Amino acid sequence: MTTTTVHENAVLPELVTKHKTVLDRAVQAIHERTFFSQYPENPSPAIYGEGADQAGLEAYKQLTGKHFNELQQGEPAGWVGQEESPYEQAPIGVSYPYYPVETLVKNGQNTFDTWRKVTPAQRAALLIETLERVKSRFFEIAHATMHTTGQAFMMSFQASGPHAADRALEAVAAGYEEQTRFPEQQVWEKPMGKYSLKLQKSWKPVPKGLALVIGCSTFPTWNTVPGMYASLVTGNPVLVKPHPKAVLPIAIVVAEVQKVLAECGLDPAICQLAVDPAEKLITKELAEHPLVKIIDYTGGSAFGNYLESLAKKTVFTEKAGVNSVILDSVEDLDKVMQNLAFSLTLYSGQMCTAPQNFFIPEGGITVAGVQVPYEEVVAKLGEAVTQVVNNPKAGPHVLGAIQNQVTQQRVKELSSLKGRSLLDTCEISNPSFEKARICTPVLYEVNSEDREVYSQELFGPIALVIKTKNTQESVALAKEMALEHGAISCGAYTTDQEMKELIMDQMGLAGTPVSFNLTGGIFLNQNASFSDFHVTGGNPAGNASFTNPEFVIKRFTWVGFREPVQQ
Amino acid sequence: MTTTTVHENAVLPELVTKHKTVLDRAVQAIHERTFFSQYPENPSPAIYGEGADQAGLEAYKQLTGKHFNELQQGEPAGWVGQEESPYEQAPIGVSYPYYPVETLVKNGQNTFDTWRKVTPAQRAALLIETLERVKSRFFEIAHATMHTTGQAFMMSFQASGPHAADRALEAVAAGYEEQTRFPEQQVWEKPMGKYSLKLQKSWKPVPKGLALVIGCSTFPTWNTVPGMYASLVTGNPVLVKPHPKAVLPIAIVVAEVQKVLAECGLDPAICQLAVDPAEKLITKELAEHPLVKIIDYTGGSAFGNYLESLAKKTVFTEKAGVNSVILDSVEDLDKVMQNLAFSLTLYSGQMCTAPQNFFIPEGGITVAGVQVPYEEVVAKLGEAVTQVVNNPKAGPHVLGAIQNQVTQQRVKELSSLKGRSLLDTCEISNPSFEKARICTPVLYEVNSEDREVYSQELFGPIALVIKTKNTQESVALAKEMALEHGAISCGAYTTDQEMKELIMDQMGLAGTPVSFNLTGGIFLNQNASFSDFHVTGGNPAGNASFTNPEFVIKRFTWVGFREPVQQ
Repeated sequence: MTTTTVHENAVLPELVTKHKTVLDRAVQAIHERTFFSQYPENPSPAIYGEGADQAGLEAYKQLTGKHFNELQQGEPAGWVGQEESPYEQAPIGVSYPYYPVETLVKNGQNTFDTWRKVTPAQRAALLIETLERVKSRFFEIAHATMHTTGQAFMMSFQASGPHAADRALEAVAAGYEEQTRFPEQQVWEKPMGKYSLKLQKSWKPVPKGLALVIGCSTFPTWNTVPGMYASLVTGNPVLVKPHPKAVLPIAIVVAEVQKVLAECGLDPAICQLAVDPAEKLITKELAEHPLVKIIDYTGGSAFGNYLESLAKKTVFTEKAGVNSVILDSVEDLDKVMQNLAFSLTLYSGQMCTAPQNFFIPEGGITVAGVQVPYEEVVAKLGEAVTQVVNNPKAGPHVLGAIQNQVTQQRVKELSSLKGRSLLDTCEISNPSFEKARICTPVLYEVNSEDREVYSQELFGPIALVIKTKNTQESVALAKEMALEHGAISCGAYTTDQEMKELIMDQMGLAGTPVSFNLTGGIFLNQNASFSDFHVTGGNPAGNASFTNPEFVIKRFTWVGFREPVQQ
Repeated sequence: MTTTTVHENAVLPELVTKHKTVLDRAVQAIHERTFFSQYPENPSPAIYGEGADQAGLEAYKQLTGKHFNELQQGEPAGWVGQEESPYEQAPIGVSYPYYPVETLVKNGQNTFDTWRKVTPAQRAALLIETLERVKSRFFEIAHATMHTTGQAFMMSFQASGPHAADRALEAVAAGYEEQTRFPEQQVWEKPMGKYSLKLQKSWKPVPKGLALVIGCSTFPTWNTVPGMYASLVTGNPVLVKPHPKAVLPIAIVVAEVQKVLAECGLDPAICQLAVDPAEKLITKELAEHPLVKIIDYTGGSAFGNYLESLAKKTVFTEKAGVNSVILDSVEDLDKVMQNLAFSLTLYSGQMCTAPQNFFIPEGGITVAGVQVPYEEVVAKLGEAVTQVVNNPKAGPHVLGAIQNQVTQQRVKELSSLKGRSLLDTCEISNPSFEKARICTPVLYEVNSEDREVYSQELFGPIALVIKTKNTQESVALAKEMALEHGAISCGAYTTDQEMKELIMDQMGLAGTPVSFNLTGGIFLNQNASFSDFHVTGGNPAGNASFTNPEFVIKRFTWVGFREPVQQ
């Protein structure tokens, strides 16, 4: 029990000055909620420099087949790597240092007394500096993301690069704001008639302790950095536990964070990469460790529910969701179906926000005031999907590749479910990667009575068309699915104001954000940093809310101190 | 599944105008954290009017021995009352209507669609209006509090009246601020080079649903109104379940809330009193009801831990705490001991913030630079207590009466514990209430090795003096107690700056607020609305934090909606 001197260092104050404008702008953006992005999503040479893409690809290739040597975590217990490219269907051959759980926890915990005494403003500035460093490696991270997740290049670049960095910045800004929202100190003076009581008071946001961030295989940085940066900015050392099949993108991020920490004279173990040894998953051991106080998790519901049941932990999860599309009435059916087909096809539906259940009334829907029969609506959806996937300029680049064989298997086994097939998967090829694991979306019809079929997440390129009695039933079922099985997004098409309000009201009660009448270049599976809240805790899909105040304030505790003023 | 029209009513906009200044001032106070109080704590005629006390006493007497007829909850299943005055040791004879759990839940749930559609500003204004009405009954509530809790008149008036109302206002202000912290709507426009994507977005704080507030026997309004008003302002209907022995004070508050609701054309069932039938406690049935989404609780740890373990509920608790006093070095030992003796004596230690464990080094403490032996320090504490309780002008009015016989029994059984008695309880009488159940504080010495004795809450007028090796051990033990068994307050006396920083640091990690070097008219068991955070979740004593953002934001969910702007 010793007091550690607050870290004094020339670099930190400089970083505070350097990044003040960005931090203030980010805090402002959180409250304005109009478009804001610090990291440009367009991978053009005009922004990122001539040859940046090629250099990133080369840098990625340099990493493959080798030990990943950039981490500053001391002598490892061994090296391990099991990533495989969905594009090559072959190992990428990077191996990472691994450490016993006790070593990771001990080294992380050892940094707590130093890290918690760095001020919130200094932590925020240091973390923004790390994002600047990561920015210089966006292309490298993009190729690493492609070859671990199967995302197409554009999504790999945007999701793992600028979009992830924006979400990280958002968490940093939110955490900074919450920690500085009350005065550090104040004189409290209570008038008592002839005299007054006078106390000097101060308040401190006290971090909770070691944090664990558990990544997923499909969005290794986008789903990891918000929790990671939220815990770091609030003073908690972090252990980043990536999915064994998607390590490289986040390993690069952690390496950059460690470099900045070291430059600031701080222990790089404030942020460690915790890779599983070859044949032993360490996630449970880490999660259950009494020194681990905060857990962020993205992945399946069973493990997420287990984590949520752990006593004395602050847990943020993003679990499975059953996302709905409600079709009621539209102006232009072709445009709607093109939009939905793209949403279904994008990264082969391997997104937590991808639509799965399409609720369509048996009497069809109104198109510009004219009733169009159910079968015609369904046929249009199938045609629109076929059109996207068969367009050689679009198909392969929208679909990407299937991250793992389980997803492919799920598509194959769909025909064993109750219902009828509306559109089968078809063969298409990717001209750049002839061995790519590709699976185009399938459509499958289910009756609204057969809840057991559509009340589960069927991760991947699978869309269920659920024939309902009317839109009221569609809304009731979409709400029920969200409340009982979770939902992260919802698409709704209606030209009827009253129906729109009903949908907002009912899906609102189910804690599910709704995108209305999307056509053109914006899709329900996309969401925007600094504007769209993501997974805010209103249903079983989770509470890893990028980024509302709850996502950051539960990572620390307010503690007050007071003492009479000598009068 | 119908949309309920948003409540339209002339009264609500008027109330918004009427209370805008108070609401804005309260929000400002939360962030300034200097002294602010909306409801004067001084029960003087100059403030509350000539004869207000007498009128309040008469009004209280009018209620005794009768049915409590002010609630607007429909035909009851029966009437029940089991309150006894600790001053008279006789029943007060008020009986309350009770209802089956299903009726309470159904009637509460039926109001949800209306209440959630009243705007946050209107809900806040309506609730402030209810506090104004409650203010007119502060004296009546004070006498009701005396004769249910055993508090002395002054504490009854202040804690159940103005201090409770200030805490309620604080919760209203915090809830209002959090719900209006993000824009209701915004145009989001993303530049895409030649064109831009333009979405109309809106965000809604969606309340979670029916809330249950479980009161305690010692502070029937102070510990109930924060959760009650926090849930109400965030749009959740509330069931107030009082302790069967302390109903009347909060029954008056609920009745006033119902009157204002009715005047606003709203269903009084938005806030119901849920009293236990004669021989059946309904708390568990209420808590486990699937429609109950939020629970606030004050009371013992066993039941609190059970509530916290319930799945799918948002739970706020204030449970037992083991509060410490650390004695290291002082300027004026007499003044310190007078202050601590008062803290021990105040309401016979029946406060969640009362000190219990006094850590004193075996080598004694430094007094104005001179070492004073341990035995002398301990003797001074005993003398100071004796002086307070034997002062006929102070003793009875500070001690009040013992709320229930279990507490009295606990004092008697103390001698069976390992250790030695330092000060026995003595006989004193209350001139106004000769039958009052009185028990003066006892001091008991325990060795620091005998953790099993002092690692439990000994609720009531019991102080343990724990002899430690040195102040470092005192701090380590106080921290350990807080982290393992909970703590809500801590007093520390040191003139050494380094020691002070160590205590702040270590007790901060244990989530425990510390009052340093209190002497004179301010005591560690007091805490101030709008300034001192109360129970912020950093240790097992609970997380019912009056009022930090977490206390209100977990009662609703942010949900966003978006739609392309027609261009």
